[in-house]
Amino acid sequence: MNHSEKLDTYFTSKREEHLEQLKNFLRIPSISALSEHNGDMRTAAEWLKDSLHKAGLENLSIDETEGHPVVYGDWLHAEGKPTILFYGHYDVQPVDPLNLWESGPFEPEIRDNKLYARGSSDDKGQVFMHVLAVEALMKENGTLPVNIKFIIEGEEEVGSPSLEKYIEDNKEKLAADIIVISDTGMYGSGKPAVCYGLRGLAGVQIDVKGAKGDLHSGIYGGGVQNPIHAIADILASFHDKEGTIAVEGFYEDVRPLEEEERAAYEALNFDVEGLKEEIGVNELFGETGYSYLEQTWTRPTLEVNGVFGGFSGEGIKTVLPAEAGAKITCRLVPDQDPEDIVKKLKAHIEAHKPAGVTVTVSEFDKGKPFITPFDHPAIQAAGQSYEKVYGVPTAFTRMGGSIPIVAAFDEILNLPVVLMGFGLSSENFHAPNEHFHLENFDKGLRVIVDYYERVAAFSKDDLKK
Amino acid sequence: MNHSEKLDTYFTSKREEHLEQLKNFLRIPSISALSEHNGDMRTAAEWLKDSLHKAGLENLSIDETEGHPVVYGDWLHAEGKPTILFYGHYDVQPVDPLNLWESGPFEPEIRDNKLYARGSSDDKGQVFMHVLAVEALMKENGTLPVNIKFIIEGEEEVGSPSLEKYIEDNKEKLAADIIVISDTGMYGSGKPAVCYGLRGLAGVQIDVKGAKGDLHSGIYGGGVQNPIHAIADILASFHDKEGTIAVEGFYEDVRPLEEEERAAYEALNFDVEGLKEEIGVNELFGETGYSYLEQTWTRPTLEVNGVFGGFSGEGIKTVLPAEAGAKITCRLVPDQDPEDIVKKLKAHIEAHKPAGVTVTVSEFDKGKPFITPFDHPAIQAAGQSYEKVYGVPTAFTRMGGSIPIVAAFDEILNLPVVLMGFGLSSENFHAPNEHFHLENFDKGLRVIVDYYERVAAFSKDDLKK
Repeated sequence: MNHSEKLDTYFTSKREEHLEQLKNFLRIPSISALSEHNGDMRTAAEWLKDSLHKAGLENLSIDETEGHPVVYGDWLHAEGKPTILFYGHYDVQPVDPLNLWESGPFEPEIRDNKLYARGSSDDKGQVFMHVLAVEALMKENGTLPVNIKFIIEGEEEVGSPSLEKYIEDNKEKLAADIIVISDTGMYGSGKPAVCYGLRGLAGVQIDVKGAKGDLHSGIYGGGVQNPIHAIADILASFHDKEGTIAVEGFYEDVRPLEEEERAAYEALNFDVEGLKEEIGVNELFGETGYSYLEQTWTRPTLEVNGVFGGFSGEGIKTVLPAEAGAKITCRLVPDQDPEDIVKKLKAHIEAHKPAGVTVTVSEFDKGKPFITPFDHPAIQAAGQSYEKVYGVPTAFTRMGGSIPIVAAFDEILNLPVVLMGFGLSSENFHAPNEHFHLENFDKGLRVIVDYYERVAAFSKDDLKK
Repeated sequence: MNHSEKLDTYFTSKREEHLEQLKNFLRIPSISALSEHNGDMRTAAEWLKDSLHKAGLENLSIDETEGHPVVYGDWLHAEGKPTILFYGHYDVQPVDPLNLWESGPFEPEIRDNKLYARGSSDDKGQVFMHVLAVEALMKENGTLPVNIKFIIEGEEEVGSPSLEKYIEDNKEKLAADIIVISDTGMYGSGKPAVCYGLRGLAGVQIDVKGAKGDLHSGIYGGGVQNPIHAIADILASFHDKEGTIAVEGFYEDVRPLEEEERAAYEALNFDVEGLKEEIGVNELFGETGYSYLEQTWTRPTLEVNGVFGGFSGEGIKTVLPAEAGAKITCRLVPDQDPEDIVKKLKAHIEAHKPAGVTVTVSEFDKGKPFITPFDHPAIQAAGQSYEKVYGVPTAFTRMGGSIPIVAAFDEILNLPVVLMGFGLSSENFHAPNEHFHLENFDKGLRVIVDYYERVAAFSKDDLKK
């Protein structure tokens, strides 16, 4: 039995035990956005620290931040070998609307070889795979092929407000050769992908206030500005009918797509019909002149994530509400700057502010867009590990989502970032019935141990950015 | 002592007794919306029937409906004289939040010449004034100057679900020359008003559906239509920048304002600054080319009463929601037809439906607008009665709100409707600490007897619509 067969046998024999452990992790409702879950956040951090200890990591700590803590652990005895900094997050998205979940978001359940729970795919499941990979290598070999540092944060789903400072403050402690993150998706079922670019994020909340209280729409209607009309006007002004963002200067700093990238994306033969089927729409809609992959991977967006105002219960209430509002986020691409985009959004809102209401704009956390050259050895090696386990070529992709902290890593530590995702886009992260295909849990464990060993073959110089 | 002085003396001498009787009426918690008060509804109906009997009315009955009963009584011995149909209601609004009441809602208390109790102004107090007016005339003269029919319903506060059928079924019994209703307000303190027009109502709910579940705004954003963008586009399309409704044909059937009406409203010298202060806005906003009173009394509106979609909790959630929607009501003016308006709304929505989403429209209950020509003798006579008692000119007003049953009277019985209100907008109907200014109770009694006598001077032909 060779080395890789031994690990395979190990993962097979431990499968039930590993899944039970993961379920325990998923049972902790670590919703970072809701302050009533602060205690659960702490519980999740403690649970993770214990797991890292059990896996064989050392120097474990729960590092305080101004928000939720960061869990740290390392193993640094592979002298002369490269150091991998592994990043993930133990916080999860809110779960509403609760009534659409088939099983409780924090009552993990396996159905049809899929593990259903909030966080199963994003990101507890993927984080725990790296913990198990380390544990497997330690148990089987008594050592690791590379040095490794784990930092698992608790604020990814609220924009990682504390992590940048944490990285700045711990530059030495976090020094490494590459950064590995598993918080992204595969290209499709059975189709592995390594992601080399992410969109950034900038967002604002718009609050519109009219009268000091709700008004009767019969008595006052027609003579007083309705805050819902005002917010609708503002929201409608953000795009033209072709889906192009109408905020002045919004596209100014967008780096044009390389012809090679366009060709590579086109070669992926993206299944538009399959997507429509999967998400249940009759037609797609996006910026004119770009393919779906270009729209979602390489073009910036402005999406309204929520709108509110007035009465939304059953039936009718003839109210002219006192206030209304909306939450907006933009996905940004290289070389857009989130600060600059927020400035442009504010100017746009100011210019489109209807009469008779007060409009205030507050900023959400921001994240810069990021890109690593797709021919970097750490990227290519990840592709090889996937190909070995999955038996098909790996796609080198960009992603529409934002992991703001990737840009911070890039900027502060100046290291190549390797995004090795095991999720599938159909897995409902951020939505009811989030789940994780256990096929990718099983294969992913094998990919990760293979990758750690592949990285061990490079010199530190090979990996320089 | 002339006739009017005799009645004046009568009301003065009986004042305490009358107020004690009214307090007894107010002590009955006849809340139509809450089924635990069904027994109280019956008690109130019986109490009222007894009062009508005591006043000298005949043919008394408590007429069953599918809901709460209608109390009926008449006096029909003024041969050749016109017949007044008086409508009011003995049900009241719920009283929560109870803790905000300074004295119990069903423990009537006079403070500072104001009678505090649920129903004191809306509408038991005003109904009882007509009962007392009839009683006074009968006691003093042994007869009435006109024929009169009372119908007092018990479901006004829940939308009068049974009354239209009751009127239809009792067309003969309810035949009359004019309808008098005292369930509205004066123009202001010491400023009497006769209301000759009410706006109607038509409304729809718009539901926009995109993907079958919420989507991650990073992964899908830019390539899939966002239902919030779609609803915002639709809502923004309803008005132009000047506040004019942009629905095709919306104003087609609007009866133009008479020059005399515009002049009369202008003469009211509406206190715009006072209104801004009262509701807490820096500027008003409405359809260009019309004053505030014209906008709210005589122009149709389209107000969004509620908008919903996506995440509205604390912080940020980068979701591309599966659905969004809005609730809309239009206030209608003569001669707009609610059915026709709903058709036009639907056509507009269909024409402005963005790509990539499904839009469904469902209808709310409708009410027709109503107007009695303001130079109608029954309207003008009411103004004269007020002026005689209050010593100031009467305002002839319209009202922005809707009383759906008025339109039903108008349509089924085809009679002029005279709205003689004695309430003040500051009297907290539908809110805690409802009260009734007894100055208007005292003066109102004199106005009503004067009005009955004034109507007696007209022939039935004079009063034809």
